[in-house]
Amino acid sequence: MLVLCSGDPKMYEKFWRKMGDKTTITIPGWKSISYFSDTTNICWFLEPEFAKEVVRLHNVVGNAVTEGRYIVVGTGSSQLILAALYALSSHGAAEPIDVVSAAPYYSSYPLMTDFQKSGLYKWGGDAKSFDKDGPYIELVTSPNNPEGHPTGPVVNRSNGLLIHDLAYYWPHYTPISSPSDHDITLFTLSKSTGHAGLRIGWALVKDQEVAKRMTKFIELNTIGVSKDSQLRAAKVLKVVSDSTEEENTQEGESFFKYSYEVMEQRWKQLRAAVEANGLFTFANFPTGFCTFFNKKTQHLPAFVWMKCEKDIEDCQSLLLQHKIRSRGGKHFGVSQRYVRVSLLDTDENFNLFIDRLSSMQL
Amino acid sequence: MLVLCSGDPKMYEKFWRKMGDKTTITIPGWKSISYFSDTTNICWFLEPEFAKEVVRLHNVVGNAVTEGRYIVVGTGSSQLILAALYALSSHGAAEPIDVVSAAPYYSSYPLMTDFQKSGLYKWGGDAKSFDKDGPYIELVTSPNNPEGHPTGPVVNRSNGLLIHDLAYYWPHYTPISSPSDHDITLFTLSKSTGHAGLRIGWALVKDQEVAKRMTKFIELNTIGVSKDSQLRAAKVLKVVSDSTEEENTQEGESFFKYSYEVMEQRWKQLRAAVEANGLFTFANFPTGFCTFFNKKTQHLPAFVWMKCEKDIEDCQSLLLQHKIRSRGGKHFGVSQRYVRVSLLDTDENFNLFIDRLSSMQL
Repeated sequence: MLVLCSGDPKMYEKFWRKMGDKTTITIPGWKSISYFSDTTNICWFLEPEFAKEVVRLHNVVGNAVTEGRYIVVGTGSSQLILAALYALSSHGAAEPIDVVSAAPYYSSYPLMTDFQKSGLYKWGGDAKSFDKDGPYIELVTSPNNPEGHPTGPVVNRSNGLLIHDLAYYWPHYTPISSPSDHDITLFTLSKSTGHAGLRIGWALVKDQEVAKRMTKFIELNTIGVSKDSQLRAAKVLKVVSDSTEEENTQEGESFFKYSYEVMEQRWKQLRAAVEANGLFTFANFPTGFCTFFNKKTQHLPAFVWMKCEKDIEDCQSLLLQHKIRSRGGKHFGVSQRYVRVSLLDTDENFNLFIDRLSSMQL
Repeated sequence: MLVLCSGDPKMYEKFWRKMGDKTTITIPGWKSISYFSDTTNICWFLEPEFAKEVVRLHNVVGNAVTEGRYIVVGTGSSQLILAALYALSSHGAAEPIDVVSAAPYYSSYPLMTDFQKSGLYKWGGDAKSFDKDGPYIELVTSPNNPEGHPTGPVVNRSNGLLIHDLAYYWPHYTPISSPSDHDITLFTLSKSTGHAGLRIGWALVKDQEVAKRMTKFIELNTIGVSKDSQLRAAKVLKVVSDSTEEENTQEGESFFKYSYEVMEQRWKQLRAAVEANGLFTFANFPTGFCTFFNKKTQHLPAFVWMKCEKDIEDCQSLLLQHKIRSRGGKHFGVSQRYVRVSLLDTDENFNLFIDRLSSMQL
């Protein structure tokens, strides 16, 4: 069975192996004894070295404004989504605030929002059909997961609170049009450099009170975030920034250039396979000017969001019959004619996926 | 200001520095790319090496039965407490289940239970005065935090669900009487080896369904637990077990023997200081037979739980006037005549605490 239902970013292992010892980290036994990283920072468990490399990378890539922002580190961006919901909801309100997102939305949003049956916030469904008065929180994923398109908020009312999940706003997935500049912006190591197992995400937060409340959430939830993983993440981000600058001086291999080329090749193979069997369709993405690569580049989403054609009602089941485990449309708030498949597995598994896809017939 | 309100275990840094490179860990950049550690395990993000060392250490120390138990790793034991509340509560119930603990209880319990306003569980207060019918969850901390005494459940009704928080059930804090053998038992690295910054805790769980639900909670909360910290924790636990076995063969310094001696010395200094000024009282602990040390040992709690005598109503404020930040009784569900002070800071800060305490006068 090919397990392509989650977005496990195993593709990146190859690059990091090639980098050899550049990102190897050595941590002595007496390190990270204390709960605290920097008691002068609102986010008192944020490692200064990690914060420094976050700012540097965003400056190198040009995908986010960091000036005047508070950085809150999380155990992956999942924890930061919950922290942001906690921070934005009104703790004295009689009713929980509605949390919405435009379908197809990231399949975990409804589950994460509702699993604790919180009285602070509750899942309000598809943002496109949200018509209740009063305050709401809208989760905006851009580029969208699962579709891959750049998106913006859809409700657009004055009493809306926005959380921008920019996990895929990196030059190997999408053209960088300008530095993002939102109230709360979330990023994660899992999808940027591929280090999912470190469980490190970060939020760029405009408002000090919101940053304080997000920090409070993480304090009550896990009393901070692994220092080891923050230190490792700092080193990984440093090498990504370094590799970009070295590339400009023809000295090394740029992480983003390498990853872009892998994704470009994968999408080429995928298009050929899908065209060959005629069972599926997926979006065509226009190219866009990328300020990072300083040229027109393609949208190369981490997932393919496919629609089954002909009379196929359940695309997930069809793929399962061909030993491909995917995630069906119902998880994303739409019909089972749609399916999301990860394109971030190892070369071996990706090629197996292409082989199975190519040989599929009704 | 001496900050002794949290239990930051900085005392242990000295030991780990002495151990030199024994617990140094080197992690190459391509490690921990995947979300998954072991897909055959219910807790699919549990690193097998960490699980192995948890079992070994409990066998070496004799403080917990591990046979037939599921291990669930958490981002500190805080996350595991929430995971256990989630796992034990009935998701179809009309009312949230009451969560109780005998006062004085760990000050974070009410905050952690209620901060999300969960419809699954809610803080029910002091277990000693809990008189509602129906199911409940009782948090049992043994030895107790803040008091330091070994404790057991106090409600003792047939419809009670128990979570045993045994953060301090280690031979340097308390005589080990027998291997703990409960439905859900929680431990944490922060208080056992002192590595608070790693954010690693673990649960030993009897029931498979409960282990599954705890795992699900962590999946929805943080999609697993830092692999780097699990790998480091595995190495630290290994050195603790090794140091114990080497001590038996006169080759090294045992972590527990070292830590016991530091705590014994600190309690001696503390008693002398408190007797000198006559402002405070605290419990006398009887010695007990420790199966680990194979002799009678003392109770040497990580915190001192002091009561102000004479007419002092607010012990926390009194200490604050003398530049000692502590945590007052109200946080633990009792009067402000009581105060909890951490004894786990560095030698320097501990000695400063003793100096300030000794020189205190009304």
